[in-house]
Amino acid sequence: MRMYDLLLKKRNGGRLTRDEIGHMVSQYTAGQIPDYQMSAMMMAIYFRGMNQEETLYLTEAMAGSGDTLDLSSIAGVKVDKHSTGGVGDKTSLALAPMVAACGVKVAKMSGRGLGHTGGTIDKLESFPGFSTEISTAQFIHNVNKTGIAIMGQTKELAPADKMLYALRDVTATVDNMSLIAASIMSKKLAAGADAIVLDVKTGSGAFMKTEADAFALAEEMVRIGNNAGRKTIAAVTDMDQPLGFAVGNTLEVKEAIETLHGRGPADFEQLCVTLGTLMLMAGGLTEDTSQAEQMIRATLKDGSALQKLAEFIESQGGDSDYVYHPDRLASAPIVIAVPAPQDGYISRITCDEIGLSSLVLGGGRITKESIIDLSVGIVLSKKPGDFVKADEPLAHIHGNDPQKVEEAKLRLLQAYAFRSDPAEPPTLIKGIVK
Amino acid sequence: MRMYDLLLKKRNGGRLTRDEIGHMVSQYTAGQIPDYQMSAMMMAIYFRGMNQEETLYLTEAMAGSGDTLDLSSIAGVKVDKHSTGGVGDKTSLALAPMVAACGVKVAKMSGRGLGHTGGTIDKLESFPGFSTEISTAQFIHNVNKTGIAIMGQTKELAPADKMLYALRDVTATVDNMSLIAASIMSKKLAAGADAIVLDVKTGSGAFMKTEADAFALAEEMVRIGNNAGRKTIAAVTDMDQPLGFAVGNTLEVKEAIETLHGRGPADFEQLCVTLGTLMLMAGGLTEDTSQAEQMIRATLKDGSALQKLAEFIESQGGDSDYVYHPDRLASAPIVIAVPAPQDGYISRITCDEIGLSSLVLGGGRITKESIIDLSVGIVLSKKPGDFVKADEPLAHIHGNDPQKVEEAKLRLLQAYAFRSDPAEPPTLIKGIVK
Repeated sequence: MRMYDLLLKKRNGGRLTRDEIGHMVSQYTAGQIPDYQMSAMMMAIYFRGMNQEETLYLTEAMAGSGDTLDLSSIAGVKVDKHSTGGVGDKTSLALAPMVAACGVKVAKMSGRGLGHTGGTIDKLESFPGFSTEISTAQFIHNVNKTGIAIMGQTKELAPADKMLYALRDVTATVDNMSLIAASIMSKKLAAGADAIVLDVKTGSGAFMKTEADAFALAEEMVRIGNNAGRKTIAAVTDMDQPLGFAVGNTLEVKEAIETLHGRGPADFEQLCVTLGTLMLMAGGLTEDTSQAEQMIRATLKDGSALQKLAEFIESQGGDSDYVYHPDRLASAPIVIAVPAPQDGYISRITCDEIGLSSLVLGGGRITKESIIDLSVGIVLSKKPGDFVKADEPLAHIHGNDPQKVEEAKLRLLQAYAFRSDPAEPPTLIKGIVK
Repeated sequence: MRMYDLLLKKRNGGRLTRDEIGHMVSQYTAGQIPDYQMSAMMMAIYFRGMNQEETLYLTEAMAGSGDTLDLSSIAGVKVDKHSTGGVGDKTSLALAPMVAACGVKVAKMSGRGLGHTGGTIDKLESFPGFSTEISTAQFIHNVNKTGIAIMGQTKELAPADKMLYALRDVTATVDNMSLIAASIMSKKLAAGADAIVLDVKTGSGAFMKTEADAFALAEEMVRIGNNAGRKTIAAVTDMDQPLGFAVGNTLEVKEAIETLHGRGPADFEQLCVTLGTLMLMAGGLTEDTSQAEQMIRATLKDGSALQKLAEFIESQGGDSDYVYHPDRLASAPIVIAVPAPQDGYISRITCDEIGLSSLVLGGGRITKESIIDLSVGIVLSKKPGDFVKADEPLAHIHGNDPQKVEEAKLRLLQAYAFRSDPAEPPTLIKGIVK
């Protein structure tokens, strides 16, 4: 089997077989197929597309290109969750304890990632002592005991995906639905969970700008997951405005804790309830949606989710006292209000500008080597649809450096648009794909 | 300017500017743009195409990527000729002296190439002492004095084309009309001639299998040449059967000499006359086609073309006595007839099989390092449309090794198809593109 022939076949609109895709991925991972042939293949796939079978084969080949996690020694259905990411997305922090409190096992691998804030791991490191650098044995032990564990993504998980993504990133072949779906799902399959709940974001702050694209990606991923034998459900949700009020690592942790007390932002709580409901159903706890939703909502009222978070933090070396006293978590020395420039209804808060403001403050990573300042960030006071008077605070900036705070303030103001009449706030949950 | 942006632009169907293409080619040649980005670009071009301007810019950028020949110190219009290649294509050997005998300057760079026989240089090396490894100064001196010189292609001529071709060859991006045209024309532009006559072959033995493709390539190249300020004319000619009777290096030299005596195969002579007529017109000798044709034909009758060949061979260190006594040229020790398996009209002689037979005998190169046996090859006795009786020779094989001769014989027989009624032989000249 020669890569040239596979290239020619795909270029001419042919369909690659399971063997051909398996060969291509394993040889590429082994360094036997050069980048210049693979990048030409990615471009040919961009133009010719892949059908459902090819997409599944590619996902499975990438999932099998390195280590895979065997979670069979954990009793019950293990449910994983993935979000395509956005501004203010602290969902895992609240959702995982909510679901675990209901008895569904959450065995999650997470990353640090680049962007305007850190990833879930960075946020969890707000708790002094907390570590995700645990062994697989410890991970499995914790899930069995506490019902929840999160470990850092090992280097050996789906290495073909890492190589392909890096190549696609520099050859303008990222935005193909099959390739995006295969990339995300390959890591999920390798991570070993039995069921997967996906949060596919749509809107100006999401990778998928249009709802049509978001639904297409959701459908592609759900199909891959189910065809690969994992129960998979996706929610398509809004990312046209920041999620909740807080953007920034420790600030988001505090907001997640507030949410577990039942005092969180309405949109964020709604998202956690929706995804949690899906996770309980994917986990086989019940097939009745309203029953699952009741169970999830109960964890916020009875304090069981908050208690589960404390158990989880403790089990990975963190100090759970901070869960009950989040004011002890690191805070930034400078906090300034950003006054509204005019009276009016907020018609728009652009996600990208809010994200860049957080990045300017030092809350995110530009390169892998960047060191994150966990304490900095932004807390919005208003959301789209809200009325604001001139000079009333739109948001508060938390920073360490007066100059960066000023820069962030200027950026932040660019995120807002106003109108004189009330505007309908965007729908948070666009739909569910199973 | 980032290659990523150019890739994205082309992928999305945009048009690249002269600056962008120039940057891309020069940076790639300098090793500043990696193969994996360029191969993705080639694939994007395969799908999106290039318009006339982009194709011209690419050709000019490749032509300018290394040395260019300055032929301005040669008086008069310098005419170059290029064939897209085929089986039995010894055209330059006869055509160059014919044209030079009329007073048009032939300043030609030529290659060795891979294939079923050697290139023009290999064939000329049948003359003991002859060398194409001459300096540019000597080359120019020879053209001025003799009216004709052929030099080996220097490594520095259009290096971007060599790099790109090698990359396209392994990434299934060869067969795009703009890229093929740009590749050929970049070398022609760099070689410095004022006018270019192209012989675009079509048929089973040619790179362009269909007449439509051959005309499209001819039109693309003629447009590039004229837009680059070089008078360019193309003939689209048949390569559905071998040209002439001889296939093999020295055997083809002998046939070219016979042709200069006016005793050559009808099809080969017709091709030389057609291309010669175009070269005289491109060289500005006359605008009258029939006058140009008369002049070219005269060189075969009055012996001036043969004499010009002798002068040319002598001027590059060869022994011109061999021109007048071609029987002194190297000959193979084994010559066997290939008898016809049946009575009938020959309906077809497949070029590829004839070419492979020559390769089996050792007459061509499989890799750059292959050593060619100049004496071996095949001389056809019959052409398509001819009647043959069973056991009458179809061809003679000239070889050095009995086993290879047997293998070549088996292959050769596969090239023939017969029919019981006379068949129209194919038209040699399909059309002229100016």
